[in-house]
Amino acid sequence: MERVPSKIVEVKGHLIDSFILSQIFDKIMDLQGDFEVIEFRIGKLKHEHSYAKLMVKADTEDRLNRILQEIYRLGATPVEIESVKLEPAPADSVLPDDFYSTTNHPTFIYVDGKWIEVEDLMMDKVIVYYPKEGRAICKPIREVKKGELIVVGEEGIKVVPPERPREGVGVFDFMLSKSSSEKPTSSITRKIAEDMYRIKKQGKKIAVVAGPAVVHTGAAEYLAKIIRLGYVDALLAGNALAVHDVEYALFGTSLGMNVKDGTLTYRGYRNHMAAINEVFKYGGLKEMVRKGRLTKGIMYECIVNNVPYVLAGSIRDDGPLPDVITDIVEAQKAYRRLLKNVSMVLMLSTMLHSIAVGNMLSSHVKTVIVDINPAVVTKLMDRGTAHAAGVVSDVGAFLPLLANELEKFGSVKGS
Amino acid sequence: MERVPSKIVEVKGHLIDSFILSQIFDKIMDLQGDFEVIEFRIGKLKHEHSYAKLMVKADTEDRLNRILQEIYRLGATPVEIESVKLEPAPADSVLPDDFYSTTNHPTFIYVDGKWIEVEDLMMDKVIVYYPKEGRAICKPIREVKKGELIVVGEEGIKVVPPERPREGVGVFDFMLSKSSSEKPTSSITRKIAEDMYRIKKQGKKIAVVAGPAVVHTGAAEYLAKIIRLGYVDALLAGNALAVHDVEYALFGTSLGMNVKDGTLTYRGYRNHMAAINEVFKYGGLKEMVRKGRLTKGIMYECIVNNVPYVLAGSIRDDGPLPDVITDIVEAQKAYRRLLKNVSMVLMLSTMLHSIAVGNMLSSHVKTVIVDINPAVVTKLMDRGTAHAAGVVSDVGAFLPLLANELEKFGSVKGS
Amino acid sequence: MERVPSKIVEVKGHLIDSFILSQIFDKIMDLQGDFEVIEFRIGKLKHEHSYAKLMVKADTEDRLNRILQEIYRLGATPVEIESVKLEPAPADSVLPDDFYSTTNHPTFIYVDGKWIEVEDLMMDKVIVYYPKEGRAICKPIREVKKGELIVVGEEGIKVVPPERPREGVGVFDFMLSKSSSEKPTSSITRKIAEDMYRIKKQGKKIAVVAGPAVVHTGAAEYLAKIIRLGYVDALLAGNALAVHDVEYALFGTSLGMNVKDGTLTYRGYRNHMAAINEVFKYGGLKEMVRKGRLTKGIMYECIVNNVPYVLAGSIRDDGPLPDVITDIVEAQKAYRRLLKNVSMVLMLSTMLHSIAVGNMLSSHVKTVIVDINPAVVTKLMDRGTAHAAGVVSDVGAFLPLLANELEKFGSVKGS
Amino acid sequence: MERVPSKIVEVKGHLIDSFILSQIFDKIMDLQGDFEVIEFRIGKLKHEHSYAKLMVKADTEDRLNRILQEIYRLGATPVEIESVKLEPAPADSVLPDDFYSTTNHPTFIYVDGKWIEVEDLMMDKVIVYYPKEGRAICKPIREVKKGELIVVGEEGIKVVPPERPREGVGVFDFMLSKSSSEKPTSSITRKIAEDMYRIKKQGKKIAVVAGPAVVHTGAAEYLAKIIRLGYVDALLAGNALAVHDVEYALFGTSLGMNVKDGTLTYRGYRNHMAAINEVFKYGGLKEMVRKGRLTKGIMYECIVNNVPYVLAGSIRDDGPLPDVITDIVEAQKAYRRLLKNVSMVLMLSTMLHSIAVGNMLSSHVKTVIVDINPAVVTKLMDRGTAHAAGVVSDVGAFLPLLANELEKFGSVKGS
Repeated sequence: MERVPSKIVEVKGHLIDSFILSQIFDKIMDLQGDFEVIEFRIGKLKHEHSYAKLMVKADTEDRLNRILQEIYRLGATPVEIESVKLEPAPADSVLPDDFYSTTNHPTFIYVDGKWIEVEDLMMDKVIVYYPKEGRAICKPIREVKKGELIVVGEEGIKVVPPERPREGVGVFDFMLSKSSSEKPTSSITRKIAEDMYRIKKQGKKIAVVAGPAVVHTGAAEYLAKIIRLGYVDALLAGNALAVHDVEYALFGTSLGMNVKDGTLTYRGYRNHMAAINEVFKYGGLKEMVRKGRLTKGIMYECIVNNVPYVLAGSIRDDGPLPDVITDIVEAQKAYRRLLKNVSMVLMLSTMLHSIAVGNMLSSHVKTVIVDINPAVVTKLMDRGTAHAAGVVSDVGAFLPLLANELEKFGSVKGS
Repeated sequence: MERVPSKIVEVKGHLIDSFILSQIFDKIMDLQGDFEVIEFRIGKLKHEHSYAKLMVKADTEDRLNRILQEIYRLGATPVEIESVKLEPAPADSVLPDDFYSTTNHPTFIYVDGKWIEVEDLMMDKVIVYYPKEGRAICKPIREVKKGELIVVGEEGIKVVPPERPREGVGVFDFMLSKSSSEKPTSSITRKIAEDMYRIKKQGKKIAVVAGPAVVHTGAAEYLAKIIRLGYVDALLAGNALAVHDVEYALFGTSLGMNVKDGTLTYRGYRNHMAAINEVFKYGGLKEMVRKGRLTKGIMYECIVNNVPYVLAGSIRDDGPLPDVITDIVEAQKAYRRLLKNVSMVLMLSTMLHSIAVGNMLSSHVKTVIVDINPAVVTKLMDRGTAHAAGVVSDVGAFLPLLANELEKFGSVKGS
Repeated sequence: MERVPSKIVEVKGHLIDSFILSQIFDKIMDLQGDFEVIEFRIGKLKHEHSYAKLMVKADTEDRLNRILQEIYRLGATPVEIESVKLEPAPADSVLPDDFYSTTNHPTFIYVDGKWIEVEDLMMDKVIVYYPKEGRAICKPIREVKKGELIVVGEEGIKVVPPERPREGVGVFDFMLSKSSSEKPTSSITRKIAEDMYRIKKQGKKIAVVAGPAVVHTGAAEYLAKIIRLGYVDALLAGNALAVHDVEYALFGTSLGMNVKDGTLTYRGYRNHMAAINEVFKYGGLKEMVRKGRLTKGIMYECIVNNVPYVLAGSIRDDGPLPDVITDIVEAQKAYRRLLKNVSMVLMLSTMLHSIAVGNMLSSHVKTVIVDINPAVVTKLMDRGTAHAAGVVSDVGAFLPLLANELEKFGSVKGS
Repeated sequence: MERVPSKIVEVKGHLIDSFILSQIFDKIMDLQGDFEVIEFRIGKLKHEHSYAKLMVKADTEDRLNRILQEIYRLGATPVEIESVKLEPAPADSVLPDDFYSTTNHPTFIYVDGKWIEVEDLMMDKVIVYYPKEGRAICKPIREVKKGELIVVGEEGIKVVPPERPREGVGVFDFMLSKSSSEKPTSSITRKIAEDMYRIKKQGKKIAVVAGPAVVHTGAAEYLAKIIRLGYVDALLAGNALAVHDVEYALFGTSLGMNVKDGTLTYRGYRNHMAAINEVFKYGGLKEMVRKGRLTKGIMYECIVNNVPYVLAGSIRDDGPLPDVITDIVEAQKAYRRLLKNVSMVLMLSTMLHSIAVGNMLSSHVKTVIVDINPAVVTKLMDRGTAHAAGVVSDVGAFLPLLANELEKFGSVKGS
């Protein structure tokens, strides 16, 4: 056996019920490697972690390295840890060829004999190490400066995959099986409300990502109520949500149709352009609120309740409103700022903004996805997060149910 | 001009705003014919009918006939009416080659100098004329007996296409534009409730077609309530609706999951089979109700409120229950019996049974289609009916809203 | 520890990479039990099985039993095997209350000191034991006769869950990740063709389940070609497939539209009724072929190539054709007969018949699902089978690609 | 009658078969008005226009004005034309309150006794009149400068709604009925190819809007071929299309999966980031092509064949590439420049960019929409354009078919 290239690795955690060990074994076999289990301790109690030590083997050094590099991303670490390798960026926005591309799981790098946690973790980005500060920060390629030390290769990096939640409460336990349009909508909504209440009571933050269908389907006032009750700490959206919300607040219509009774309004086709013009007239949403022109709705509640929001521009925008960040690189930065320290995200009927937000979240953030299109729900859930609940439903029927459940718990403002 | 094959036809009704004349002109041009407008009177008041007399022309007799045969189906009739042609069926379930295939619009045949309305009208069937009784009846091919007189060709038949509703009230005016998942769900639901109430107050009948998603999504008790309030005069469904309804009534689960709190039940995978077994044990649903074993749910409410129902078998059935009509030809007859004189149909989350019902309805029956899949809604609306409203929504969120609105109107039992 | 209710169970197989052990641990914890790993041997080579012996514990005997009964279904067996319990059926089509409801995994019962494999295994059915013949047969409730011995409880039953395929070839390895509309259609199709060729070369059987969209989307001749090349051993469908196939064969149209150039045909709306009438005239499809009236298409190829087919009736049928089995209980039996010993099933654009077939298949049958609706693909894949590939695609574009790939391999008739 | 507020209007065109008159009558009745038909001439030949003169009546002046303003947008014009009203913009990006919001139909304004056609027409924008140049230009609100003369009210404006095409050829005649996943894919594709060939032979321009699914589904090389054959005059896309196209060109993968055989690549998860890094290294796509680093694919073919392209940024971008216009207001301008004088647009699997493009197109531009999601196809077709064909299909199967058909016609480069 001494001739066979091999390496000893270890892994800790809820190895079995969170499928971590299964995934490592799978990957080794997929890549035509072999393994021997040297040691395997299963946690005696179910909250105890398990521990496994494996000898990974392959017919060539090259294949062995390939296998190792893949299983490190799944949580395995070599017994003899090597320091992380660092290389300077050759130019602004240019990476060394062998750059390490991040997962969305909590990540540590081994430098100077100790593990440092990577800050601001996001998927598919790079890690920059600042030796003076002893800090490692996750960054998108555009923000990398010439000479910054970029983590390369796959050694000296430890990834902590998410574990299956076992709280025994809330929607995330409940929804472990796949999302489906054939789940009891009312029960699920109640559980989501319970989770939101619990999170707020723990002093944690909830962000909402919302698309214009919230307004079109007549649910704007319910989202407004949820904000008023204190359940929203940040709103991430695009131009359309704000335009339609203002149209509804000013004229009672959505794309010219009376939301209350569904009749068409006289010259109603002008209303969303008239709403845009009104915002331009005042110079922005906050001015409209300050001067008493905008007196209700989603944006109004955000403004009067000091809930920060970011409206990101997109190529299909009408206007866009002066409040919209039209440069998407800037908008991404603003989104990331709002998502710092968020514990839960509600994604309401917008694939574009939800994917953007999903890419910015660590895998331990709880995510609830509501969309009428099952393909959107599946796509958004498919990010390796352990705490995602997908609800295939009509946001116009879901939000009234949710607002109603949250109202039973009452306001959490100031929590 | 005397050489050109031509024929004079006339058409009456709301020719323009119901698009009838547009469709006739369209068809003539599609088939490379030509036409001259000989007379055209537009109703002076908007409730008055318009009248048009056209000379249709084509380069050959054959082409002219083709054109005429197509436009007769759109409501045109020749000025000089010919009697309908009849031919005996050569064998049981075999039609004369030139049989007339029906539309779903009210249809008359011209026999012995007068127009007779065709009874039991359905789409894609044939018309049998009974000379002794002087009656014309629409029949499916399987029910045609050797020697019965079948209408052939396209002459002597008058079709009355549906006119756009102009009641100014209700969901059917409101929803004239296409169905969409971006409509205000609450307003639409309120309007559907108004229509249902109005129809019941006029002493007319409402049928419901429902799939098992009604139970899976936790809405069984809301449909039960709607039945209890008297808004349902007939229920058309399959085995699965009844099985899941009984499972929920007996065990509180749907496919083993507690509907109330979403937890999994011990040995819950057995529940739907156990529900089936329980019905077999009693010999049928009515016996279960009579003996106090089944005490709530959709089927229970049908039975205690004397609402007739038909459960049609399908190839994917578990069981099926003894109450299910397993022969689909018999099941179709039973469906047709229940649909007689129905004025409105609610189609809830079942493509299979809704298409079956759609094929049996005259185009003037009001139809509301609720499904989470927009392709299903589009397909079901695409039947040339003038009174169809499509709601792309989650039936689990829609039915609670609808039951709530109907409850405001109160019971219509005995209406 | 002696006071705590406990039981020792063991499990063998690819415990880890097939997630079997993970699922068992999961279930124990879900049900608030506890466990201790007494012995755990991981197969030294990747083709070797692993072995685990666990002591399962719970606070009450009742809870322990609940846990055991659930994990037996996942492949665990008690170290001290008890004989299976049997109870006579109290009446025709009535089961003893504690009947065992089958999974779709290969299943054995322990009787008279030995394990007997259950024949004709299907999901959600019961097991009948025939002591004289020493055979155990899986049966639907309707076929159970009074006095037959039904397996009850969860003891003495061994279930063998499917293992992840590791053939390293074919579409089933390739498609382990979820189905998606964002997969390379051409590559997937090539791999499906390879699998079909390999299966036929091994002398095994392939069944096809097909809906009428195959004809509507213009792919009838490609499925006909696949049959002609010998790749189809059984066809399971409904009335609509046959009606539209005959319409296309006789008139070149599908619902009146010329499939080749998309133009509308004169009186084309009659064509599908005329096709039905033509079949009734001849008394059936086989007679039409024998007398030279039907000379091409899917049904024609089945008949001339002696490929057995079953057409199951449904409530939405037009006609239905004389060849259709209108009683769905009989149609289910006929489907089951055709599915005996099938190794692979292609499900083409029909949810109704595919679910029916899926319920009749053991979990080791390879299944390829093609549908344009991602929700249908997800639902059909969600049956715990280890060899399912979902293709979200347009069957009208997929079948020409598949026929083309199979043509490269050539005919396998007589394989 | 002299007391009743009334006004005489006229309308010309294919009033009946293009449903123009029906829509006008509809609108009058919807708004509780009345009308009298004073004169009505139907074109004697089918290519002749019809003419109608109506007296529109209402119970109040206000209601009459409402009705008139709505029907002007449908093509009616008052017999006594008034000059268009103009008001200066009160500030940059701020409109006079009564601004006229444009349709997407060709539009004329009446100034100084003559009709002037509005240039650069788009939907939901405003019209700016430049008296010195005697030109009227359609502009988005952001580009309006203080003091520019904005068209207000609804008088003095003539709109020419699209007429139903009657070319008797091509996909747009063929597809007049609604889009459907149950159409013959091969025939439709052939007809689209014929239309593209005809348009190129007439020296007109075709634009393509494409999403990354083109690459994921393995169709990148087919779109590349279509560009090489000369059928694409402009490409409008986002960052993702280019990133995935470059990943596929450099590594043969799409999101790490080998497109050719579907296997996963070693460290393939890095590939799309590595592709981005490679573009940054060279400074842009054109430099990569010039220096021989990028040698195939969609972007490569655009660059070597001088096909202009615009990549618009979006909030979900990775990178984005240096070639991407990150400010969406600038990106919209760049899109509009590319769409000038385009006669046909192919929209391939991207809702975001297709909606953006749809908003910029006049209603007479032919549009083909290909998407696997029927809701996307319906939404994109629902813009009142008369020449839209929707294909519910898998772009990975559709593009090979289309490329194959176009190849039969051969190259149209230089046409």
